[in-house]
Amino acid sequence: MRNQYHEELDAISTTLVEMAGLVSAAMGNATKALLEGNLAIAEEVIASDSVIDTLQHELDDRTVDLMARQQPVAGDLRTLVASLRMSADLERMGDLANHIAKVARMRYPALAVPNELREIIEKMAVVAETLSRKVAVVIRDRDIEKAVQLGADDDAMDILHRRLFTALLDPAWPHGNEVAIDMTLIGRYYERFADHAVSVGRRLYYLVTGEFADI
Amino acid sequence: MRNQYHEELDAISTTLVEMAGLVSAAMGNATKALLEGNLAIAEEVIASDSVIDTLQHELDDRTVDLMARQQPVAGDLRTLVASLRMSADLERMGDLANHIAKVARMRYPALAVPNELREIIEKMAVVAETLSRKVAVVIRDRDIEKAVQLGADDDAMDILHRRLFTALLDPAWPHGNEVAIDMTLIGRYYERFADHAVSVGRRLYYLVTGEFADI
Repeated sequence: MRNQYHEELDAISTTLVEMAGLVSAAMGNATKALLEGNLAIAEEVIASDSVIDTLQHELDDRTVDLMARQQPVAGDLRTLVASLRMSADLERMGDLANHIAKVARMRYPALAVPNELREIIEKMAVVAETLSRKVAVVIRDRDIEKAVQLGADDDAMDILHRRLFTALLDPAWPHGNEVAIDMTLIGRYYERFADHAVSVGRRLYYLVTGEFADI
Repeated sequence: MRNQYHEELDAISTTLVEMAGLVSAAMGNATKALLEGNLAIAEEVIASDSVIDTLQHELDDRTVDLMARQQPVAGDLRTLVASLRMSADLERMGDLANHIAKVARMRYPALAVPNELREIIEKMAVVAETLSRKVAVVIRDRDIEKAVQLGADDDAMDILHRRLFTALLDPAWPHGNEVAIDMTLIGRYYERFADHAVSVGRRLYYLVTGEFADI
């Protein structure tokens, strides 16, 4: 019975890693849809969001079910509670990829991102994908060193986010409000995506060490 | 022992109601700071965010501790898991009030909200406060009827949010990008605040009925 229990615990961790993989792919595709004005890919990301949501619901049901059946003690209980929280972060990261795909779809066939801001968004997207790929490894390997590294990526995201605002506030900004509003929201989606990735890292760190990480 | 256990369960619910009260006050004050350009109130809201955060940490610790000590069965376990999720929603609502106060502080002594948009923001703020006050009652009374009503308030918020975008996109918009960016973010903070309030309502509904609400 204990073996089956530990298999179920492992399976929960495996599903979290799977969620992180789906979220990472969704964000990569959302960026592609955004920068290339690719409607088909945007639709694909939007459709895939319900897959991530369903995975989260099933995972949370299994997690609570395991709590109820096995009455886990301190360490395992902490793992299961952390799983509920990490799945919520990952689900939200999927939503944010979805939001980016929706901006791409709304502006199609035009491009939402003007040429001057392309480079910043590309860089924000690279950081976002790096973060979500690292998150999968952090969960899989319970790797606290990598969890701490997420903080540096998040700092890079914050710097890019500020650079984006500086560009938007340039008095010589040649675009209208619509582009400024789109870019404000897009910037916020990438930045929040990074915040949730760091949040997963913090939860994993706490789970492994029992201490709060200064990430 | 069972009596003490049920007292502890009740105390968790009481703390959630207290959190909702603090969040509601924070949002009311954040709006006041924003619309009146009141720096002292803005600072107060910003300082009070850590009170809400600390309350959440303590509450979550107590909740997990109760899970570990009492090995609750299905119904109580569901209550405790829902408490963890509701506290996360409420904590995030506090963050969003904090973000609004920070915009007020950043623009002080100027007003962030231009006259033309004052009415929309006032209305969004009224909906936000109504939602957070109802959320406290929903948790306190486990009132599923009121939980469902949150959906109508959220619809009102969405309509106001769209009206805000329409105003920002008016070709005759007399303000620059800075105001448009501020207003885009402020609008999003109110709208997300409403989303989290509805999320609390959904969790409570599920807790009481075992069904997912169509809110």
